[in-house]
Amino acid sequence: MKVAGEHYRTIWMDSETGLVSMIDQNALPFSFEIFKTRNFQATCHAISTMITRGAGAIGAAAGFAMAQAFLEGSKHLKVESSEFLSIVESARKEIEATRPTARNLFYATERVYNAGLISVENAVREAQLLADQNIADAKQIGEYGSKLINNGSRILTHCNAGWLGFVDYGSALAPMYIAKEQGKEFFVYADETRPRNQGARLTAWELQNEDIPHKIVPDNAGAYLMSRGMVDFVIVGADRIAANGDTANKIGTFEKAIVAKEFGIPFYVAVPFSTIDFSIADGTQIQIEERSEDEVLTYSGPDSEGVSRTIRMASPGSHAFNPAFDVTLSGFITGFITEKGILKPGELITSIL
Amino acid sequence: MKVAGEHYRTIWMDSETGLVSMIDQNALPFSFEIFKTRNFQATCHAISTMITRGAGAIGAAAGFAMAQAFLEGSKHLKVESSEFLSIVESARKEIEATRPTARNLFYATERVYNAGLISVENAVREAQLLADQNIADAKQIGEYGSKLINNGSRILTHCNAGWLGFVDYGSALAPMYIAKEQGKEFFVYADETRPRNQGARLTAWELQNEDIPHKIVPDNAGAYLMSRGMVDFVIVGADRIAANGDTANKIGTFEKAIVAKEFGIPFYVAVPFSTIDFSIADGTQIQIEERSEDEVLTYSGPDSEGVSRTIRMASPGSHAFNPAFDVTLSGFITGFITEKGILKPGELITSIL
Repeated sequence: MKVAGEHYRTIWMDSETGLVSMIDQNALPFSFEIFKTRNFQATCHAISTMITRGAGAIGAAAGFAMAQAFLEGSKHLKVESSEFLSIVESARKEIEATRPTARNLFYATERVYNAGLISVENAVREAQLLADQNIADAKQIGEYGSKLINNGSRILTHCNAGWLGFVDYGSALAPMYIAKEQGKEFFVYADETRPRNQGARLTAWELQNEDIPHKIVPDNAGAYLMSRGMVDFVIVGADRIAANGDTANKIGTFEKAIVAKEFGIPFYVAVPFSTIDFSIADGTQIQIEERSEDEVLTYSGPDSEGVSRTIRMASPGSHAFNPAFDVTLSGFITGFITEKGILKPGELITSIL
Repeated sequence: MKVAGEHYRTIWMDSETGLVSMIDQNALPFSFEIFKTRNFQATCHAISTMITRGAGAIGAAAGFAMAQAFLEGSKHLKVESSEFLSIVESARKEIEATRPTARNLFYATERVYNAGLISVENAVREAQLLADQNIADAKQIGEYGSKLINNGSRILTHCNAGWLGFVDYGSALAPMYIAKEQGKEFFVYADETRPRNQGARLTAWELQNEDIPHKIVPDNAGAYLMSRGMVDFVIVGADRIAANGDTANKIGTFEKAIVAKEFGIPFYVAVPFSTIDFSIADGTQIQIEERSEDEVLTYSGPDSEGVSRTIRMASPGSHAFNPAFDVTLSGFITGFITEKGILKPGELITSIL
């Protein structure tokens, strides 16, 4: 998408040098900065500190990190040596430990690792292909999803599954961008999405950038909006989906799905197939990342003079519990908007048989 | 309750001077300060800016403000004069406009206004009686509610319906304080309660003060906790209850109630009868206060050096929608913990017939 008239991918890699560049999502929306990593360790750090974040962007970052590991290893070691294999294997484990819930991360490391067993150039090519595929999938998701959006539609979304969460277009927001291109007029409620406020910071920034009418709402407002008929449907993204359709996504997603079902409001999950983990039968097998309590207890942002400050949100001495994701049971999901079309939960598995 | 060993009411009035003193709830938990108001206008300001807040404390504040209006008017005018009556009538309207959803506010102004028609002293006496009654009701709520709490109970609460929200004891937290006195050991999850974080700031501060084990959770974590069997029951307070049991309380309450019902988790509302508005049949008639978008878009708190800072939480240029309350339909409420016992929604009206 475009930022101030210039087209950007969320993350990209120079195939020669292995230098990875990414939009710094912790600096947004207050400052637009490009963060660069020269090796896989630095890229791991960028993933775990959420400089890059969102299912698709994490996948692309992990693929690039895996390619960086092959590039680095090949500088010092013979690629046929057992030391080389041991180094890239250990790099893969390190990358996979950064965000354990994110399916696309494991999908990407596996693909690039296997490609790298043929040659280092092949690993780099595969990582670039994954990023290109991410964009193609997202655009297709946008095309299918745009059919759900009519003039006057009021849509609720949670967290950020926009183009910042992918390499371009996004998943949950892609249908909105395509519908906007089609000339449709609609309105978006963006959950602020505590504790990291990806909705208030990133989704709102994207929607503003694309001139789509929207308002930020506290996460608490969901039942208020839905009980009063102010929301026509909900679209969210996902971090990992089990074969039966159980969906791990940002904490709070399950609440919205339960409330939506109570009021008969359709609830859609927009994802590429690379987010689906067919190796697990249901959501009980999805590992949920628990993050630092500091994300709940403190908050950073610019003061009125633009100086970044970190302030305490909570009573000193009290502690917080901060699970990063929850698992929405498939029975609460109306449909999955994928690059293969809009599928019911039960159709995910049959579509690949 | 006690603060650093000294007993405090949340709000109190000197009957001679009409000076009202209250714990400044905007300064908490970072600083413990007493805010004083010399006239009803200043008390109105304290209510609308939430220096004092919470159903019961608002009720006491409104009663004191009404008494202040009688005291002030009587300094300059004959109490039999039509000017005097016109001044106290207009004061009543001003007080009632501060927080339109709060039932206790209207209950208190009506009681003190009617008492004042007999004499100014009678208005002052009635306002003091209301505050005393608030404490007696809260303690009784605590006694009845404590029977729900066992050793090992895990309780979720939303917003602050503790002693800060009353004159003492609280409503939702009163059962916990009584259970603690009874020697029971239990655990509390305190929703942080965006946008004003009364849970993270006030409930956590109270629980810490009373040495009750607890953790703050983002509001988004409700379905996560409840779907994993980590919560035995939910207790919240209320701002206004219709005759059928529909309950207006802090935004987000309805979501918790819907999620609790989905998982078969009991959901209790703790309130004195003075919060019940028997003049309205159901929740559709409850007016919901909409507050400034700044409460969502910015946040204030101390930085690491203790200096209070206001920072931007959200993307600049985006706007927010900030309804302060929602209405939980009575069908989602297991019971009301009142000073008359624990009643089912349908028993509220029959209990006064």
